[in-house]
Amino acid sequence: MSDFTIAIHGGAGTILRSDMTADLEREYTDALEQALMAGYSLLEKGISSVDAVKAAVTSLEDCILFNAGRGSVFAADGSQEMDASIMDGGTLMAGAVSAVKNIKNPVELAYAVMAKSRHVMLNGQGAYEFALSQGIKTEKDDYFFSKFRYDQWKQLQGTDETALDHNVAAGDKKFGTVGAVALDKHGNIAAATSTGGMTNKKWGRIGDSPIIGAGTYANNKTCAISCTGHGEPFIRAVTAYDVSCLMEYKGHSLQEAVHIVVHDKLLKIDGEGGMIGVDAQGNVAMIFNSEGMYRGMKCSDGRNEVLIYK
Amino acid sequence: MSDFTIAIHGGAGTILRSDMTADLEREYTDALEQALMAGYSLLEKGISSVDAVKAAVTSLEDCILFNAGRGSVFAADGSQEMDASIMDGGTLMAGAVSAVKNIKNPVELAYAVMAKSRHVMLNGQGAYEFALSQGIKTEKDDYFFSKFRYDQWKQLQGTDETALDHNVAAGDKKFGTVGAVALDKHGNIAAATSTGGMTNKKWGRIGDSPIIGAGTYANNKTCAISCTGHGEPFIRAVTAYDVSCLMEYKGHSLQEAVHIVVHDKLLKIDGEGGMIGVDAQGNVAMIFNSEGMYRGMKCSDGRNEVLIYK
Repeated sequence: MSDFTIAIHGGAGTILRSDMTADLEREYTDALEQALMAGYSLLEKGISSVDAVKAAVTSLEDCILFNAGRGSVFAADGSQEMDASIMDGGTLMAGAVSAVKNIKNPVELAYAVMAKSRHVMLNGQGAYEFALSQGIKTEKDDYFFSKFRYDQWKQLQGTDETALDHNVAAGDKKFGTVGAVALDKHGNIAAATSTGGMTNKKWGRIGDSPIIGAGTYANNKTCAISCTGHGEPFIRAVTAYDVSCLMEYKGHSLQEAVHIVVHDKLLKIDGEGGMIGVDAQGNVAMIFNSEGMYRGMKCSDGRNEVLIYK
Repeated sequence: MSDFTIAIHGGAGTILRSDMTADLEREYTDALEQALMAGYSLLEKGISSVDAVKAAVTSLEDCILFNAGRGSVFAADGSQEMDASIMDGGTLMAGAVSAVKNIKNPVELAYAVMAKSRHVMLNGQGAYEFALSQGIKTEKDDYFFSKFRYDQWKQLQGTDETALDHNVAAGDKKFGTVGAVALDKHGNIAAATSTGGMTNKKWGRIGDSPIIGAGTYANNKTCAISCTGHGEPFIRAVTAYDVSCLMEYKGHSLQEAVHIVVHDKLLKIDGEGGMIGVDAQGNVAMIFNSEGMYRGMKCSDGRNEVLIYK
């Protein structure tokens, strides 16, 4: 148990050691360590958990390796639409954006919705106009371009297939999402999640990431949760809030509650993925039912790890 | 307790007898009775609760009195953007659409998302294209036009004010949403919700209505819920799923759980509005913390009422 702590994820899915090179593994590990430090260094100074999760997710959004912000995948129409959300467990205030384009850091925009508007969720072009009114940084399409993502999309373009992240080989599913949860020195917890969605997605599909209660939830009384996985079952199971209810109403610990939701409730509706969580006592859970989950935690009691596989 | 039952709402808020004429009151009452019958007549024939809530909400969407479908309010840019969702308590399948335009019955589109796509939530222009692919009925702007809604918007246009429904006088808030919950002869429950949002809304604001867990939730094990109110607190409180968790994890009855959420949890975060619910035993709850809520229920045991005020 720690005075302050942060945990992050960079997506879950079929992440196998046999598919990874030593160089690529190091790139992922370095990026996760950098994101952890971006948040942890703020917590060390006594800055809030909300600012810490925002900083960690911003760091992951800026990294081309992860499907969020700069590294977002291409939708069926060749555009990159992003979703993000953030919640403050101390105030139960929340902000979210869905289907936004050309926003450098969607999590910053979700934070602005929480802090600067009377709303919780803003969408599409309207959210973009709000971003401009708040001085949120925008980028042209070429900032978000990578040959890697473009080639993934080209494999699927014109088909009815979608892919949850970059590996489109049969049976190989990755759920590209990033997220962070944190406890600060003042005892407040927070959570944030950000994603570029599914490669070749159509019809304006929205997953669980911008949905408060599904992809993100935070409440000092219980837990702060950020999810990654196949969004549809996560929405139907109201996944993040279910962990909170299992703690508040059934008396389960964070670890027990996350375990029940990931290994029982989600599996019953074919929900593949995982989640990270913290509580106000500094407990951390990082649990998934897929082959792997990019993840890490850094705690004031010295626990410090970055992991990829089971 | 009934073998089959349906309950509906047409929004909550500052609905006062002193503001109402006898004629207008009769119009509302007739419209609510018609929507109840649209669903009840299906349940009587043994048709599913999902079809019954869809039929009742369709009836309310087609009525110009309610802020959903045809009677949707105008956003700040003069457009009419609608949200809707539906959930099947037997399968835990769900469908939702956000920020859709020119769809005659958004609840029909939410149903098609549930029944005909692999997704739960579709948004904006993409959702419109999905609608066309499914033969969902569209209408031109003039179908949705009413002088009444237009005049409301003109009162606010160019200001930073929004209004939750048609009365824009100071302190007079109406939360225009429609919804239905039902239990069918086979013991399955379902819920659906539909709205046109807030008059003069900006920035692509999305409320709780299309959010599974917030505005709508259904699970045969617990309850089917449809909410109406100030969407932002309803999202933050994950309102509909909270009722389900209070029943499943704490053993509360439907009535007790809805009472706790509406009169305790929502009030603590200034959440004004109400909700309707049924359970698989045919219990019905229609509870609100505002001045009034357009509501009604019709049950196979003979209970049959349409109410507006406290």
